[in-house]
Amino acid sequence: MRRWNGWGDDTIDYPLSARALAFLEEAVGAAVPPRDVSLAEALAAVPASRLAGAAREPAIHVAADDRLRHARGQSLPDWVALRGGRLSAFPDGVAYPVTSAEVARLLAYAAEVDARLIPYGGGTSVVGHINPEPGPRPVLTVNMRRMNRLLRLDAISQLATFGAGVAGPELEAQLRARGFTLGHYPQSFEYSTLGGWVVTRSSGQQSLGYGRIESLFAGGTLLAPAGETVLPPFPASAAGPDLRQLVLGSEGRLGILTDVTVRVSPLPEHEEFHAFFFPGFIEGTTAARRIVQARLPLSLLRLSTPTETRTTLALAGHERLIGLLETMLGVRGVGDEKCLMLCGFTGRPATMRDARHAVIDITKEHGGVNAGRRFGEQWIEGRFRTPYLRNTLWERGYAVDTLETATTWELVPRLLADIESALYSALEDGERVHVFTHLSHVYPHGASIYTTYLFRLAADPDVTLARWAALKGAASRAIISGGGTISHQHGVGRDHASYLAAEKGEVGLAALADVIARFDPDGRLNPGVLIETGWREIA
Amino acid sequence: MRRWNGWGDDTIDYPLSARALAFLEEAVGAAVPPRDVSLAEALAAVPASRLAGAAREPAIHVAADDRLRHARGQSLPDWVALRGGRLSAFPDGVAYPVTSAEVARLLAYAAEVDARLIPYGGGTSVVGHINPEPGPRPVLTVNMRRMNRLLRLDAISQLATFGAGVAGPELEAQLRARGFTLGHYPQSFEYSTLGGWVVTRSSGQQSLGYGRIESLFAGGTLLAPAGETVLPPFPASAAGPDLRQLVLGSEGRLGILTDVTVRVSPLPEHEEFHAFFFPGFIEGTTAARRIVQARLPLSLLRLSTPTETRTTLALAGHERLIGLLETMLGVRGVGDEKCLMLCGFTGRPATMRDARHAVIDITKEHGGVNAGRRFGEQWIEGRFRTPYLRNTLWERGYAVDTLETATTWELVPRLLADIESALYSALEDGERVHVFTHLSHVYPHGASIYTTYLFRLAADPDVTLARWAALKGAASRAIISGGGTISHQHGVGRDHASYLAAEKGEVGLAALADVIARFDPDGRLNPGVLIETGWREIA
Repeated sequence: MRRWNGWGDDTIDYPLSARALAFLEEAVGAAVPPRDVSLAEALAAVPASRLAGAAREPAIHVAADDRLRHARGQSLPDWVALRGGRLSAFPDGVAYPVTSAEVARLLAYAAEVDARLIPYGGGTSVVGHINPEPGPRPVLTVNMRRMNRLLRLDAISQLATFGAGVAGPELEAQLRARGFTLGHYPQSFEYSTLGGWVVTRSSGQQSLGYGRIESLFAGGTLLAPAGETVLPPFPASAAGPDLRQLVLGSEGRLGILTDVTVRVSPLPEHEEFHAFFFPGFIEGTTAARRIVQARLPLSLLRLSTPTETRTTLALAGHERLIGLLETMLGVRGVGDEKCLMLCGFTGRPATMRDARHAVIDITKEHGGVNAGRRFGEQWIEGRFRTPYLRNTLWERGYAVDTLETATTWELVPRLLADIESALYSALEDGERVHVFTHLSHVYPHGASIYTTYLFRLAADPDVTLARWAALKGAASRAIISGGGTISHQHGVGRDHASYLAAEKGEVGLAALADVIARFDPDGRLNPGVLIETGWREIA
Repeated sequence: MRRWNGWGDDTIDYPLSARALAFLEEAVGAAVPPRDVSLAEALAAVPASRLAGAAREPAIHVAADDRLRHARGQSLPDWVALRGGRLSAFPDGVAYPVTSAEVARLLAYAAEVDARLIPYGGGTSVVGHINPEPGPRPVLTVNMRRMNRLLRLDAISQLATFGAGVAGPELEAQLRARGFTLGHYPQSFEYSTLGGWVVTRSSGQQSLGYGRIESLFAGGTLLAPAGETVLPPFPASAAGPDLRQLVLGSEGRLGILTDVTVRVSPLPEHEEFHAFFFPGFIEGTTAARRIVQARLPLSLLRLSTPTETRTTLALAGHERLIGLLETMLGVRGVGDEKCLMLCGFTGRPATMRDARHAVIDITKEHGGVNAGRRFGEQWIEGRFRTPYLRNTLWERGYAVDTLETATTWELVPRLLADIESALYSALEDGERVHVFTHLSHVYPHGASIYTTYLFRLAADPDVTLARWAALKGAASRAIISGGGTISHQHGVGRDHASYLAAEKGEVGLAALADVIARFDPDGRLNPGVLIETGWREIA
């Protein structure tokens, strides 16, 4: 069963070795886990619903369990609220529609009872996309997970239409049975949904090969309070601004996507992942940039800083293997400042062979050592297990959060340093922070910067939240002033909404608010997300 | 000097052989050229300006010559109006700003005198983007051609910032001198500008390799009546809807782009173009689809129907060479229904060798014969000369126009047939039409359909225009009802505006109108383009 106050399936754990714990203690100090509220306590705190759960189709579930499980996403503040018993608002009901017609009925019902409406995919947001706001109007959460079927496969055009609530594994299973793949693997893949990927501009780990969701999203149907909009799956068009690009990143504010047509690929003939180690981050960054600027057809390229590489190896277990690796690397001049680069090759065997040779040539010029396929394959096998580490860390008294941005290659080194130093110096109460970073996605014209920060949980949830706010605020300000976007892959939600004007401009943000008002004149859908409540009055 | 009533430089001609003329006579009948008005007659018909050309910076030119040369673009109705002396409106003045500050002053001046404002790039629109509307308010055309400099090259990030008025050849010359290329080659390349490409969602002939302008456009600055918007050149972002995608396709209605940052590539190490001939269009289409769906790294792929192949060979001259080719093809089973496919290979030599072999393997499976590089190289050398043929044809009494769309592979064959048959049967006065088509751009998930139609000019310009309207209307209705977009690469302008709601939907179109109203509250910029005047009142 899925955890109500943590990540993932409760039969899966990510154990930490004694060496890993010693590493953490060394980094930020020994920690004591706070007392979490129990499920029974949390359920007891759910107030009465303001919606009638009476007989209607689709049913509106008002049980405390449904409402608690849809109250929060997976951000660190969400965890603090869930585990610390600090939930300020709950949906008044949860519906699980099966058809577009049922979604339309829910929109009509919300208008009838003047309820707010929150479209809900996998509930994996880490920036506050699906949290109800306290307020006088009742809140209905629309969980899309039952709209999860392959509705049409146009194999000639390599286009597949799904119910928007389909989650990653269900989507891939249905495509693979027919010889296709979408190739979209965000870390939330186990639970996050196609519709959620679209409205948050999700990026998968192999987006270098398959493309971000922006290029995979061919079309679909959006049901909005103002009416239905069908987005046709043209391969390209010069017929004015592309409405798909307004739906991408709309974060539930324009309507509810009921079906989504995606561009799929035949299953790859060949796939392999290689690890490389570089003597330092500058060498690794230069090699990464040269590889992607050579337009080599890789499916994945990520590069960790020395601290992230050290942390990854310390937390991974496999002590003997890593010892052997470090000896081997040392002989070849790669020592304490070593940086791990992972490269994925997915496609035609001949093309991949050529690409691999070209990558190896470039890495060698920058002192890179090819550590072969073993580390790469291990990473790819364990890639959806990583979020489970959050559970273990919390239970050991450690908070972990991530933040991310993207910028041009010219600005990457400085922005990365600014973000890390903002985090290191953000806490004024003497608490230490462990910070590490990787370039998670590379483009010919820039890269994303993905930073993890780890610190101790306080006994008092409010103190933990204050630490988080100080860290997150400092890093976000560094991102904006350093020329980065406030998000490369997590979206805006509530946590980033106040930073949006910096990159959209006042006129641009006002235009987006106008678009929202056109699709949803009564402000019924997901208010406060993407654009702050009250922002229109300010502008 | 540039022709005032035709295509291109008046020292360049595209002669037609006797065989070519015989081919045309056979197709649609012998023709008599209409009498065109002279430049002196056209200048005499320019009315007095409603704007003062007095001393101000930048100067506003009110001479008849400036105003005549900015009155129309390059569509067939534009030519009919220019050559037939049927111009209904002229700009009242033309300004040629050099700096962003001058553009800002022009926006302020337009507000002051309540003028309408038309941003003007190369004047190569074929759908009515830059034509002034008759009306009580004066019209100021802002010709951007003097804002044509490379402002910044970030070689590390492969990003180049230009003045938005830079034309194709100037842009490439400035990049090539520094080892880079944009690789964007629309047929209008000689005159069309970077800013024009962006706001019309232009597609270059080698977009298969370099990407459409949508993926080359990294950011820039838009000056609008409501204020300035800076679009940062992030490589990717999940921070809400992408405002660049609202500027792309905005066709001058949101403001004036003053500078544009584009994603550039190093000059390719290797480039070659190959011609293939297929025994029929089905075989060619299947091969084209399989090549692009194999994700082979081509820079160009276009496929002509049998009629287009026949027409191209007839108009090309080189009778002996073509005779030899036809004999060679006949021996290999490629006869009267032969279809020409051109493939471009641009990039690393090893990758290109691999791609070429893979392409040859696929074409062979569908009866394709590789005719080598000669035809391909000839096409690429002459590719910007083709529009000059329009001048020659007009002078021989023939009108020629093109229209285009894109759709999914599944729908391509039917839609292509529908468009051609709509054109063949559109004229009720017994006039014949010669129609031919190619797939100009292919994608894994669909293709563009580019149709040329040729018919006789009437002695009376109004009759010619009526013929055009009947043909264009029939084809546009076929596109919409057959599942195509109203434009893959020419844009909306005035000629396609009434078809836009069919693909954007009522809510979507209203949202776009809202965005326009936000950037340009007084409706000063390019009214009637993209979204029809009066449309908001209807919705």
